[in-house]
Amino acid sequence: MHTEISTEQQTREQELVDAVVASFNQAEDDRLRTVMQALTRHLHAFVREVRLSEEEWNRGIQFLTEAGHITDERRQEFILLSDVLGISMQVVGVNNEAYKDATEATVFGPFFVADAPEIPHGGDMSFGAPGEPCWVEGSVRDTDGNPIAGARIEVWEADEDGLYDVQHGDDRLAARARLQSGPDGEYRFWGLTPTPYPIPDDGPVGQMLNAVGRSPLRASHLHFMVTAPGFRTLVTHIFVRGDRIGWKDVVFGVKESLFKDFVNHGANEPTPDGRDTGGSTWTDVRFDIVLAPDSI
Amino acid sequence: MHTEISTEQQTREQELVDAVVASFNQAEDDRLRTVMQALTRHLHAFVREVRLSEEEWNRGIQFLTEAGHITDERRQEFILLSDVLGISMQVVGVNNEAYKDATEATVFGPFFVADAPEIPHGGDMSFGAPGEPCWVEGSVRDTDGNPIAGARIEVWEADEDGLYDVQHGDDRLAARARLQSGPDGEYRFWGLTPTPYPIPDDGPVGQMLNAVGRSPLRASHLHFMVTAPGFRTLVTHIFVRGDRIGWKDVVFGVKESLFKDFVNHGANEPTPDGRDTGGSTWTDVRFDIVLAPDSI
Repeated sequence: MHTEISTEQQTREQELVDAVVASFNQAEDDRLRTVMQALTRHLHAFVREVRLSEEEWNRGIQFLTEAGHITDERRQEFILLSDVLGISMQVVGVNNEAYKDATEATVFGPFFVADAPEIPHGGDMSFGAPGEPCWVEGSVRDTDGNPIAGARIEVWEADEDGLYDVQHGDDRLAARARLQSGPDGEYRFWGLTPTPYPIPDDGPVGQMLNAVGRSPLRASHLHFMVTAPGFRTLVTHIFVRGDRIGWKDVVFGVKESLFKDFVNHGANEPTPDGRDTGGSTWTDVRFDIVLAPDSI
Repeated sequence: MHTEISTEQQTREQELVDAVVASFNQAEDDRLRTVMQALTRHLHAFVREVRLSEEEWNRGIQFLTEAGHITDERRQEFILLSDVLGISMQVVGVNNEAYKDATEATVFGPFFVADAPEIPHGGDMSFGAPGEPCWVEGSVRDTDGNPIAGARIEVWEADEDGLYDVQHGDDRLAARARLQSGPDGEYRFWGLTPTPYPIPDDGPVGQMLNAVGRSPLRASHLHFMVTAPGFRTLVTHIFVRGDRIGWKDVVFGVKESLFKDFVNHGANEPTPDGRDTGGSTWTDVRFDIVLAPDSI
């Protein structure tokens, strides 16, 4: 569309960038100066590259305004925006570089709740949330293979209606819990077999996805956050291998190493702990967690 | 701080960028695809360059959330953000390339109101807003020097308290008007001598400016929007030459060609139209406007 920008015009545009960058020179906080100057350069580069029209700029302001107005304590449209642009995942990658065979990290998402109820080994984190029972077990180890006892394991997931407890709007607390790894580093609990669900798509982010022909669906997953003194905190999910969404995950959170085999079992098959599933089919999955040291 | 990024890490980061860019490939609207893909590339480049920490990302989400919550029909924090990062001015520059001696454009700002009252030649656009009277006159011409009759001239400015009418929160309408150029292309009206004022700085944008040691003050100015059939709409200001803010204008709106000489007059000096200023000093300024054709 725009074939050629004159040298004079390019000079004027660059002079403006330089002036804005220079306006941050007196910032006392070196890091803040670095971040704001880089943000300035990259945003201006975007505007100049696409020759952003005034109407498009207006649309951008309107988008951000709508995102701000739909955001409240239950709904975070700016995190959704960051997620669907892959920014959240890029931040995860920048801050959690691969280390030996340590478990890979993925996006945190907006649905974590601090201080979820503690459950014992083999306890049920669903707290009545609807869905197919899923037996989850595994170990927590360091990169030398030594078990890590007493690691704090926080887990949370959507129910089979595709909603987290906090999205129901009725103060329920379900499908989330915390537990600790045992002396041998092992853990086990009952959860729900993860199913695909859409991110909240009735706001500006959903409209954008629709406009560009992208699905709002996330690949089926179960969230983990694992912390232990001396180790890098691991924020990750496990994904269901063979899930129909898989790599098309709307927030780009999928990694090959995080696909796990969720094994299907008939309603009459005995469960690992003898629990009666009440006539329901069930699944099981193993997830062995490896934590990187926090000193890397 | 971050000395070296391994090739493997760089590859992983680039693969993520490529995946996000590819997710927009199926967008039916070519322009939307182009804009979203460029936005993705530039935002990821920012995150990768500064190695944005998770805490900084959180702070960014918090900043946008606060900006959204302070924004309403009277207050537009996202426009302020765009303004203080020079993005608004870059968009103006990209869309209003210099053409012969056509008057240069500058930022629109958030305080324009459509359909302000019409005033006759020599009328008073202050409508009682406090400030020193200022006689403004000039002509509207094309780039060949021909007068443009009947051009619509919209003017607006802050009062001497540094506030636009809409900021007072009491539905007053003052210090804004529209008028038309005469058959000879000339126009004239009474306004207020512009004074410096801060952009609204009690929100997240003001906090950011404070954190980096930047003043929230705008250089003294009077807004113009000039429209005429067959010509490019001109959105600009005139600035007061010798103003104490000048080039330090917080939104980078100043251009050399837009500084004008506001001539000071004593309270007893006769005014151009014989108006009695009621014992007040007054100023006058001439602003000759040149419109570019709309076909460029």
